[in-house]
Amino acid sequence: MNFKDYIRVIPDFPQPGIRFKDITTLLKDGPAYKAAIMELKSFADTVNADVIAGPEARGFVVGAPLAVEMGIGFVPVRKSGKLPFESIKADYSLEYGKDALAMHVDAITPGTRVLIADDLLATGGTIATTIKLIEQLGGIVVGATFLIELSYLDGRNHLGDIPVKSLVQY
Amino acid sequence: MNFKDYIRVIPDFPQPGIRFKDITTLLKDGPAYKAAIMELKSFADTVNADVIAGPEARGFVVGAPLAVEMGIGFVPVRKSGKLPFESIKADYSLEYGKDALAMHVDAITPGTRVLIADDLLATGGTIATTIKLIEQLGGIVVGATFLIELSYLDGRNHLGDIPVKSLVQY
Repeated sequence: MNFKDYIRVIPDFPQPGIRFKDITTLLKDGPAYKAAIMELKSFADTVNADVIAGPEARGFVVGAPLAVEMGIGFVPVRKSGKLPFESIKADYSLEYGKDALAMHVDAITPGTRVLIADDLLATGGTIATTIKLIEQLGGIVVGATFLIELSYLDGRNHLGDIPVKSLVQY
Repeated sequence: MNFKDYIRVIPDFPQPGIRFKDITTLLKDGPAYKAAIMELKSFADTVNADVIAGPEARGFVVGAPLAVEMGIGFVPVRKSGKLPFESIKADYSLEYGKDALAMHVDAITPGTRVLIADDLLATGGTIATTIKLIEQLGGIVVGATFLIELSYLDGRNHLGDIPVKSLVQY
């Protein structure tokens, strides 16, 4: 399946010059969405993860179904102030803008093998921050998987030797 | 499975007097999370839906895996300003606070049978707004399903004769 055919490119969103990759056109197509998750699962099955972590909000539509398909847990990585229990947080930069991410202090226990899932690997800022939070809790990041990778932004540079799988590259 | 055992109650979040139902303790338990989605699927299979719509952000962790398990599409209902393509929007009130929800104009086509999925049915404000948006696009809401229902808030009153399934009630 050519997943790129299901992704819509929106010029100048959310800022002039950005060619936003709209995954809603993929998500609303049942067979394409399922095929995408199953292809990520083929990779995920190789890294022996205990749990999947996904950054808010689009990471939820990748990580949550992947976790359920695999029968493992899902840990939401949320914007600061959204999580109800005691949390740790870290600031990060986006391709456009700044924000902070947070995880519950009991989201994972030390030694937990964590696979990160998100819609997009751009500059890697979100993922670097997610890795930082996971490692602060004693977790081991065993892989990272994305629907889309913007290869020209070199986001993989933030990921060291962590195995990475992206479904589609631009 | 007694799903209530997996849900953590946090007093005074996000405001004094609110007893917040924290589903992250359910999500991080792989077997419990999968069992929850499969129980919602048993209901979902009876309403003959073409697509699942879920409000941002916790609706994504319910609706997205349910859609993938069923092999049908998922439509994110997002906070205003988040969707990149032409959208319709509607204001709504929460149990605590106010916001606006939006859907892409091409998220569904007229006549599409839509199942709504979210983590929580409280006063029903979010769901009433989601129904309004779906119907504005010509969709037919054939059911609504939740992990948690706060029965004492009578959210079902907003849902008319739409079939409703909630996993856990308070």
